[in-house]
Amino acid sequence: MPRIPFAELVDTLTEATLDLGLGPERAARCARIFAESSRDGVQSHGLNRFPRFAAMVRNGGVDVHATPSLVASAGAIERWHGHRGVGNLNAQDSIERAIALARQHGIGAVALAHTNHWMRGGSYGWHAADQGLFALCWTNTGRNLPAWGATSATLGNNPLVLAIPRSLPGGSHAGAPHVVLDMAMSQFSYGQLASYARRGEQLPVPGGYDAAGNLTQDPAAIKQTFRALPIGFWKGSGLALTLDLFAAALSGGSATHQISADPLQETGLSQFFLAIDPARIGDAAEVDRIARDLIDALHAAPRTDLASAPRYPGEETFRLRHENLRLGVPVDEAIWNEVKALTSAPPPNP
Amino acid sequence: MPRIPFAELVDTLTEATLDLGLGPERAARCARIFAESSRDGVQSHGLNRFPRFAAMVRNGGVDVHATPSLVASAGAIERWHGHRGVGNLNAQDSIERAIALARQHGIGAVALAHTNHWMRGGSYGWHAADQGLFALCWTNTGRNLPAWGATSATLGNNPLVLAIPRSLPGGSHAGAPHVVLDMAMSQFSYGQLASYARRGEQLPVPGGYDAAGNLTQDPAAIKQTFRALPIGFWKGSGLALTLDLFAAALSGGSATHQISADPLQETGLSQFFLAIDPARIGDAAEVDRIARDLIDALHAAPRTDLASAPRYPGEETFRLRHENLRLGVPVDEAIWNEVKALTSAPPPNP
Repeated sequence: MPRIPFAELVDTLTEATLDLGLGPERAARCARIFAESSRDGVQSHGLNRFPRFAAMVRNGGVDVHATPSLVASAGAIERWHGHRGVGNLNAQDSIERAIALARQHGIGAVALAHTNHWMRGGSYGWHAADQGLFALCWTNTGRNLPAWGATSATLGNNPLVLAIPRSLPGGSHAGAPHVVLDMAMSQFSYGQLASYARRGEQLPVPGGYDAAGNLTQDPAAIKQTFRALPIGFWKGSGLALTLDLFAAALSGGSATHQISADPLQETGLSQFFLAIDPARIGDAAEVDRIARDLIDALHAAPRTDLASAPRYPGEETFRLRHENLRLGVPVDEAIWNEVKALTSAPPPNP
Repeated sequence: MPRIPFAELVDTLTEATLDLGLGPERAARCARIFAESSRDGVQSHGLNRFPRFAAMVRNGGVDVHATPSLVASAGAIERWHGHRGVGNLNAQDSIERAIALARQHGIGAVALAHTNHWMRGGSYGWHAADQGLFALCWTNTGRNLPAWGATSATLGNNPLVLAIPRSLPGGSHAGAPHVVLDMAMSQFSYGQLASYARRGEQLPVPGGYDAAGNLTQDPAAIKQTFRALPIGFWKGSGLALTLDLFAAALSGGSATHQISADPLQETGLSQFFLAIDPARIGDAAEVDRIARDLIDALHAAPRTDLASAPRYPGEETFRLRHENLRLGVPVDEAIWNEVKALTSAPPPNP
């Protein structure tokens, strides 16, 4: 895969986003969230996802001019309506609002209905942690996962994000190696199943059911049945359902069963954003000490693979980010050319 | 298993708790939480757990006279110190305090350090939902689960609880069939592995590793290696770690790596309690409607087992509760006699 300087990735995505009709400030923010996902190694929700985003702007699923509006407020928690605006901007606005509430009340939350796919959930965890806040967020999705005991997709994979801020020497939270978990409720995404199948590889652990109803590690068999496995079998199924109901009922929005299973029509999502300011009930140095001691204990644990220590969530993201900033961000050449073709700007080297 | 009327279970546990030195109000509340867990079908954390609780009162791990004290407050979130008091009372006090904060600010949270095992986590979800509140709580535990990539127990199974309140016809939340998830991060508890092993049964899905390092459904093999599996392999491992760090860092308490792996010395836990009052940003009828529609869609899904529909978290708990109230609560006869022997009260039928 060719590598592109991060700044060029941001610039190209900004041009393409401007061409979709967003104003300059919003286009720059939207493009940056896409670019940062690729920079952090999550290409599937970065550059690679941009063409589908553009298609949903064109088919009307995403309204580039809509911004969230406040529906109800109760002090430290608010309900917002997303008006099917740009998913990553709606989500960033929501975590920003939760952060502002947390600065005031110690904790703050936003329940957001009628929004669009937030792309990489981790974006909002890193965003809060860069400002020194704890975060807990999740989204529902269209139907892509059978409930435990069901044979067809009834649940969303409903990604869950938790973030704990760390700080750099000198005390800055921005750019520190935060602990950020970004986890869907499916054992493997359909994108991952496709990658394994393309490489002709078996999954490392069972990922779903084959046509005979048996657990299988064969990605092609799962792509045929669409019976992917929730994490922990019945457990992840229960968690996915509960996250869906929690977000939909608090926001007054749609639950997964009401959302299209067609990725190009997957709109009207419900999300929940929580932020906590630890400085209001403790101090950042204490959080850093507790995190460092926990990570040291993890790294010191006896290993199954003698070459590598167990990792904390966010550790590989942070390493990849710095590698990609140094060497350039790897891009899928076909998608990169497709996105460049979306822009009306002249090519950088005419 | 013999069945005991619920009232008799409460009375006997209250006598036994009084004998441990708790005052009358606290003994009654503590005993009721134990009894309700058995009533709801969770014997492992109800009656069956009482002897270990009593042993920890006797060995000094639990201080029956300690009550939580406020360490820091930031409006809608507070930090409390549990002083190694009675775990289920500390937890109930904490969710009560989160509920009071939520009534005031829409959302409220308590980070509790230096507490003891809360027994059944679901207790605090049902407690909040019975008052019409959403809840989200978790605890860390001693080391009982290997992190992904580690060969020995480095993580806790850190149960996570989410609750969404429903209401009865007439509008009462108390006693309604709430949606309550109560989920540990291990695929099976050691208690469950022991039950399968005792019955000579294999696990329904892989539950850990055998001595050769292979995934296995043999419960005895896992009890030998102590290498139980987190839900979703690397995913549950990451979630368990993040929940641990989140609770420890916010409460200023201990993380799992600092807590004894010996169940009789498992004290000084860190917990997080969140409550949200949906009536402050919406209304209860809307929550009920969204929950009912979601549950109807779940029950209507095509089924793997034609005899039973997929269930929502809390559905079986609610059914068992009413069965046990009607028929009596099933008790393990040996443990029932052991707990009765703990009381200095005369037997009910002399």
